[in-house]
Amino acid sequence: MTPPLRIAVAGLGTVGAGTLALLARHDALLAMRCGRRLEVTAVCARDRDRDRGVSLDGIAWHDTVESLAHADGDVVVELIGGASGAALDLARAALAAGKHLVTANKALIAHHGPELARIAEGAGLNLAYEAAVAGGIPIVKGLREGLAGNRIDSIHGILNGTCNYVLTTMRETGRDFDDVLGEAQALGYAEADPSFDVDGIDSAHKLAILSSVAFGADIDFGAVYVEGIRGIAPLDLVFAEELGYRIKLLGLARAEAGGIAQRVHPCMVPKAAPIAQVEGVLNAVVADGDFVGGTVYEGPGAGAGPTASAVVADLIDIARGGRVPTFSIPAAEMRALAPVPIENRIGPYYVRLMVVDRPGVIADITACLRDHQVSMETMIQRARKPGEAVPVVMTVHDVKEAAMGAAIDQIGRLPTVLESPHMIRIEAL
Amino acid sequence: MTPPLRIAVAGLGTVGAGTLALLARHDALLAMRCGRRLEVTAVCARDRDRDRGVSLDGIAWHDTVESLAHADGDVVVELIGGASGAALDLARAALAAGKHLVTANKALIAHHGPELARIAEGAGLNLAYEAAVAGGIPIVKGLREGLAGNRIDSIHGILNGTCNYVLTTMRETGRDFDDVLGEAQALGYAEADPSFDVDGIDSAHKLAILSSVAFGADIDFGAVYVEGIRGIAPLDLVFAEELGYRIKLLGLARAEAGGIAQRVHPCMVPKAAPIAQVEGVLNAVVADGDFVGGTVYEGPGAGAGPTASAVVADLIDIARGGRVPTFSIPAAEMRALAPVPIENRIGPYYVRLMVVDRPGVIADITACLRDHQVSMETMIQRARKPGEAVPVVMTVHDVKEAAMGAAIDQIGRLPTVLESPHMIRIEAL
Repeated sequence: MTPPLRIAVAGLGTVGAGTLALLARHDALLAMRCGRRLEVTAVCARDRDRDRGVSLDGIAWHDTVESLAHADGDVVVELIGGASGAALDLARAALAAGKHLVTANKALIAHHGPELARIAEGAGLNLAYEAAVAGGIPIVKGLREGLAGNRIDSIHGILNGTCNYVLTTMRETGRDFDDVLGEAQALGYAEADPSFDVDGIDSAHKLAILSSVAFGADIDFGAVYVEGIRGIAPLDLVFAEELGYRIKLLGLARAEAGGIAQRVHPCMVPKAAPIAQVEGVLNAVVADGDFVGGTVYEGPGAGAGPTASAVVADLIDIARGGRVPTFSIPAAEMRALAPVPIENRIGPYYVRLMVVDRPGVIADITACLRDHQVSMETMIQRARKPGEAVPVVMTVHDVKEAAMGAAIDQIGRLPTVLESPHMIRIEAL
Repeated sequence: MTPPLRIAVAGLGTVGAGTLALLARHDALLAMRCGRRLEVTAVCARDRDRDRGVSLDGIAWHDTVESLAHADGDVVVELIGGASGAALDLARAALAAGKHLVTANKALIAHHGPELARIAEGAGLNLAYEAAVAGGIPIVKGLREGLAGNRIDSIHGILNGTCNYVLTTMRETGRDFDDVLGEAQALGYAEADPSFDVDGIDSAHKLAILSSVAFGADIDFGAVYVEGIRGIAPLDLVFAEELGYRIKLLGLARAEAGGIAQRVHPCMVPKAAPIAQVEGVLNAVVADGDFVGGTVYEGPGAGAGPTASAVVADLIDIARGGRVPTFSIPAAEMRALAPVPIENRIGPYYVRLMVVDRPGVIADITACLRDHQVSMETMIQRARKPGEAVPVVMTVHDVKEAAMGAAIDQIGRLPTVLESPHMIRIEAL
């Protein structure tokens, strides 16, 4: 039998402990599947004395990532987190020391993936990051290998379980964003500082990585248009239902004439679309290839077990001797693709307004639309008492984002419109 | 750059022509992804003169599979079909000649997979069959590599698009089986001889293969319990809807104490289950792993494009130098696992009866249930004119299949019960 694959793990939080637990529980099974054992030889974490529920017997303890990078091992697993700092230092040091690198760190890969891939591939090493995107769903492998016969035309997905949980719960209960977010924090589904999740940054990291794999292009995190879910009101979920839609925070990337469009924002999607059925903390990705058509991948996007599953899948690939280009084509060949700005989006839109219920209001609003050649599809106005503020929602036919934005600006300046108009993009998918 | 991977293709039907079309269209893209070209060097098919819409210029023509197996090439792609005959001859000859083998042939793999894997692995060759299961969905790779960190506890899936199309259309239109099947044949979704599809054989082939990958066991096609969809009546779909279920032909495999249960039969599944949402000709597979939890894979299960996508994914793996155990563990280590017979199933059931509407009928039926300790959950009886035959459906709580079968036999012999009772298993999933 081949000698064991010797593994050094940095970071023993939930995912690190889960990874050690998995490797311990399935020691014999993994040896059978890989033709060699997967053996943890070294670890590094902040607090040596904390009880993590896993045995560290026989595993060398290192106090610094510099020391771990040079520890006895074939692979370094980075589970520290963060786009720079200790995680980046470790990644560079591990590759420089001739170790394969496995990471669950989406921020690190979104910001430094191509640089690290060039170093890794130049040295004949693997850089693997399945756990960085969509947790336990093997979507990086699916795109980079399973669909590798196709030109990928577009991908879209629910990439953040916290946002999907919040939106699902708001719809099911009618409660508002702050209330549901607070509950999600209490349940451990959302961080104390939820902005990475609810403002769309986490989804954007993952989307930028998937785009690179799908289109064989340099990661361009700065080119991702990002809008989170704080603006979604319970009323939007009610109107979406009435109009035949669900509201989801999606990451979308599409190859278009002139480059790649990458965006993360709330979308109204038809209730019958596969992505609309994905509820709660689940993640899902839909990939469209020119020969295969549409394929869907769904599962748990976070948590110790699913993330450990993805980390160990990468370790198994390495143990089996697999070597594929990190982002689907050799890193040395990756080029930046021109970003297609959000202003170029063409599609339908939903707009919610709060207006004073008096004669002429609708005429003023529709005049603004006409001025920018925006064509209305439906309008719903709910009656309240005369003189009170009433919500008006409308959907408009395909129009360019720039024109829609200008029309909404003009509408927002009408004296009868009481709050900033809220716009949600409708995606047919 | 590494020399091209030279490919010999046997069979130029829809899938063969689709594979050649894909390789031609994406020649440069695949060379970039693999670091070498994928070059078709030889083909073999029945009719040399048929126009297949793809160019055979510069490709050597062979009249026999024996000749093709020894043609200039690194890989033989078998797209002939059938569990034995030319396909099996070619597979053995190709491996004996030192060629990797890629096939889309589920019957061949279900019947001869372990034998061929032992030959291939013994010779350091790849045997790859992603296209044999669920068309374009990379489910073999997903299970064997993406989820390889997990003990797989169970899998279930819609593995035959024809059956799913027929059941979906019956539900949507209220038309009966023969009518919808005829239409499916006219549309090209069903074969002239539909029995492989509608009697569940095709699903059973695929399930037996997936079981082997999931559980690292010898393929045991003979142990799969198989029941098709011919017995499903429009009335069953109406009652299923009323009871909160959808009817799907599922393949299910589960590791149980004492072995593996493998079965293909119509199931009533809760409308909210992921698999219930999969409609029309689509396929889907749900895999449950001990660390990852449940993951779902959905997409087109047949057709030239999706199947070519899967065939080429296998070729790309080979071109990139990938080597993983054919069925997730080394073929030499694969063992038969004891089959768990269908009689051991414990679960709820749905039963439809046609009865004479006269006093005492229900008392007789419920007495039969009582005699076998079967506990009724719901009963629905639709009134017709007195003395006419009426349908009665009931669902029963968890009970062993053997007891349920005995109760149904007894019910079927009651003089007031007019047709053979029809039973459908309910799966909570």
